[in-house]
Amino acid sequence: MITSIPYAELQIGQSAEYRKTVSEQDIVLFAVLSGDANPVHLDAEYARGTIFGERIAHGMFTGSLVSAALAMTLPGPGSIYLGQSLKFRRPVKINDTITVRLEVTEKRDSKNIVVLDCKVTNQNQETVATGTAEVIAPNERISLETPVLPNVTVG
Amino acid sequence: MITSIPYAELQIGQSAEYRKTVSEQDIVLFAVLSGDANPVHLDAEYARGTIFGERIAHGMFTGSLVSAALAMTLPGPGSIYLGQSLKFRRPVKINDTITVRLEVTEKRDSKNIVVLDCKVTNQNQETVATGTAEVIAPNERISLETPVLPNVTVG
Repeated sequence: MITSIPYAELQIGQSAEYRKTVSEQDIVLFAVLSGDANPVHLDAEYARGTIFGERIAHGMFTGSLVSAALAMTLPGPGSIYLGQSLKFRRPVKINDTITVRLEVTEKRDSKNIVVLDCKVTNQNQETVATGTAEVIAPNERISLETPVLPNVTVG
Repeated sequence: MITSIPYAELQIGQSAEYRKTVSEQDIVLFAVLSGDANPVHLDAEYARGTIFGERIAHGMFTGSLVSAALAMTLPGPGSIYLGQSLKFRRPVKINDTITVRLEVTEKRDSKNIVVLDCKVTNQNQETVATGTAEVIAPNERISLETPVLPNVTVG
């Protein structure tokens, strides 16, 4: 089950975490769906010649994990995404385990708008991205079966 | 071929566009790779009960198209993504044709940093998102064969 936290129950300082290990397939899928074929993400030989030394994940793949953290944890399903800022501070590499930590920093009473601080770290506690999210939190608690996502085959 | 525009050749006011039609499979793939299973994106019946009236694409899917626009057009391959802000202004729906327009607004001579205004519109010329990107532009012109992306099967 995934359950939202309604606007009225959200507290300043409340936090949640969302974690995912990045696979090579994730990077390829992100390239396919966005059309972003920057060779630093896809071409190991090209990437060896860059300052990164190896293939890295797209910055906006990290952005997609922030989106997932908001939808799946805080405020959870039914949230409406209004805006996001992100600074990409370190590369994310294949097999990195990425943790998105969200913390409520502001509640705007007019329209259920909530501002959350976003800090994204890797398995070495290095910060890979930071930013701020703005969402409309749901009015009521929503509990849903976690949707079963289909299998995806690449090749 | 995809070709980058080196930092020295970038002009304030220079612009480029990147266009993609959003498929139902794109939305499912974005959910699979991010883990963002917010039902407004995946569950038609749930979405009918929201203010959107139908399934919408993830906001960060639009973000991924901005990323692709930067990597594929301006400054093009070899760019390094430093940061992005986005405001999500209107929903993006299945079969919408989305255009990302980038415009160079600032060149910071210290480290090849370029700031670009980002405006994302749909096929009705409605603005769906706006924001600002910050990238390091490549030093030299890079021309690459457009990578061939694999087929993806969902099911």
